Amino acid sequence: MASASHAPTPLLKDELDIVIPTIRNLDFLEMWRPFFQPYHLIIVQDGDPSKTIRVPEGFDYELYNRNDINRMLGPKASCISFKDSACRCFGYMVSKKKYIYTIDDDCFVAKDPSGKDINALEQHIKNLLSPSTPFFFNTLYDPYRVGADFVRGYPFSLREGVPTAVSHGLWLNIPDYDAPTQLVKPLERNTRYVDAILTIPKGTLFPMCGMNLAFDRELIGPAMYFGLMGDGQPIGRYDDMWAGWCTKVITDHLGLGVKTGLPYIWHSKASNPFVNLKKEYNGIFWQEELIPFFQSVSLPKEATTVQKCYLELAKQVRAKLGKVDGYFNKLADSMVTWIEAWDELNPPKGGVPTANGPPPKK
Amino acid sequence: MASASHAPTPLLKDELDIVIPTIRNLDFLEMWRPFFQPYHLIIVQDGDPSKTIRVPEGFDYELYNRNDINRMLGPKASCISFKDSACRCFGYMVSKKKYIYTIDDDCFVAKDPSGKDINALEQHIKNLLSPSTPFFFNTLYDPYRVGADFVRGYPFSLREGVPTAVSHGLWLNIPDYDAPTQLVKPLERNTRYVDAILTIPKGTLFPMCGMNLAFDRELIGPAMYFGLMGDGQPIGRYDDMWAGWCTKVITDHLGLGVKTGLPYIWHSKASNPFVNLKKEYNGIFWQEELIPFFQSVSLPKEATTVQKCYLELAKQVRAKLGKVDGYFNKLADSMVTWIEAWDELNPPKGGVPTANGPPPKK
Repeated sequence: MASASHAPTPLLKDELDIVIPTIRNLDFLEMWRPFFQPYHLIIVQDGDPSKTIRVPEGFDYELYNRNDINRMLGPKASCISFKDSACRCFGYMVSKKKYIYTIDDDCFVAKDPSGKDINALEQHIKNLLSPSTPFFFNTLYDPYRVGADFVRGYPFSLREGVPTAVSHGLWLNIPDYDAPTQLVKPLERNTRYVDAILTIPKGTLFPMCGMNLAFDRELIGPAMYFGLMGDGQPIGRYDDMWAGWCTKVITDHLGLGVKTGLPYIWHSKASNPFVNLKKEYNGIFWQEELIPFFQSVSLPKEATTVQKCYLELAKQVRAKLGKVDGYFNKLADSMVTWIEAWDELNPPKGGVPTANGPPPKK
Repeated sequence: MASASHAPTPLLKDELDIVIPTIRNLDFLEMWRPFFQPYHLIIVQDGDPSKTIRVPEGFDYELYNRNDINRMLGPKASCISFKDSACRCFGYMVSKKKYIYTIDDDCFVAKDPSGKDINALEQHIKNLLSPSTPFFFNTLYDPYRVGADFVRGYPFSLREGVPTAVSHGLWLNIPDYDAPTQLVKPLERNTRYVDAILTIPKGTLFPMCGMNLAFDRELIGPAMYFGLMGDGQPIGRYDDMWAGWCTKVITDHLGLGVKTGLPYIWHSKASNPFVNLKKEYNGIFWQEELIPFFQSVSLPKEATTVQKCYLELAKQVRAKLGKVDGYFNKLADSMVTWIEAWDELNPPKGGVPTANGPPPKK
């Protein structure tokens, strides 16, 4: 028997898209070939659309540049960031799959402590396909992993868990530090492999990094808007953070889960801390108001879909953050535009039209 | 130079007591000798006071049996459980030190992945001496560890952290499972060494296990009451859980932190699941009411000391859990007695007398 003919079908092969924002040739995919090649890629070209991006042979992909975004969204294209990797969320919008994995093009395959290559995508899928436990902390971490369970004192009524909407993976080598920390600790590398996955408890915010991130598009897709960053905007490097805060309050409201921990990728190159500082300084300042805002956001009972939650959030952003800076009024407008564009590209399938598309598959 | 004269002084040598509840000879201390011998032990003999407990030579200890507890507390001794390791909390009360480490006598020294013996006590002390971060989740876990820090997007105003009141350690080999899980998975062993310490976020409850636990007595001691368990009570094996839930709502209220994760101990022997089931079944049932109760407890602003918080909690236990079972009225009485006994044995030192003793040392 030829072993190739018995290779197991990759998990969710036809239900997941890999979204990659980039400004350069995608040679980094060579290292990912054994894990990514069976999947479809959505490449969002960030910056000059006249430049040609080379994709290694054998990958199945579609590529969108700024001209494509403008053509497809028309005036609504204004909600997609320009010259910033925040444009990746356009890929979430055009995908037709249930799951998304997004990765940066400076992220490579990491090794586990035994020296084995880590199939990050496979671990994300396992995270997404097993429940989360946001209502009570389990001290042995993810109770659904092999060799683990709920410990003594964990309420039995909570052991079923809730559907997992987001799987947030981590990074070995270059840690995801802000510019001030990069400047202070230029040589710090993350060498600690923490063999854990855990649910971020309900009511707790976290810094969601977009470098190595997977989510269930049907459960939470419309909340994964990466905001207005980059060219023409007063802020950068808060795109994923913004998406994370919005996503967390919405998953909390809808009874969904967010996991963090495994898998690791190998983050190869620290970005320039001086450039980063310029992008971040407004965010560092504004964030001190954003966190209390998100910690106290309350969504009404009637907000039963991600879209409804997101539009309500946009309203509250305008009402409460507009006074922090005019930028947040613009951002609130874009949040509304984003939902309009999402619904245009993702019309409700089948029977009764709803704002949220079809119910999640069981 | 003789190397012995240059051995570093063990951390907090004169500021920490090790509390051990036991019914047998303490041969397990032999393995801990290199780590525990410099410290003072408080042994609380659980059960028949006529039995002599043998302590290996060279350890500095005091031992209390039931007769001692009765003599010292008089009628207030009723708050200390009989024939149950919950009696360990008597040791917390008689200690005069700032820090407590408590460990079960079936817990041995574990090895880290490199094969090195883990000095559990030293790691607990490090946990207690570094701040906690209960208000926002850090995805690289404890930001104060060497090689780690706060990640991008972590608000700068929260990076100072708050004082750590509790360090909850974990167990390799026999996991701390309830009786039903023990029955279903008799052969499961915990072999996963997770190299992490993390703060349990504000507002999140967790199952606190008393097997391998350290805390700051001055910050949180009076909340560490292990309830009424064992002989004559309708419940067992919820002593540490009860203490954990009370402690967590009080640390949340007072702005203190609780950490969990490292260090591991080697838990050698699973207790009998049939016996455990008999002890636990009421708890398993009642717990479904206890968790919503603790999740919704609100302590008034005037509750500015642990004692005041704890007495308020006792009041709410009586008001809201008394109807679940008469046991909770008895428990509420004991909670009050416990505080009275605590204050009797720990009179305020120095100047102005306050219910909470002296302010924590800086």
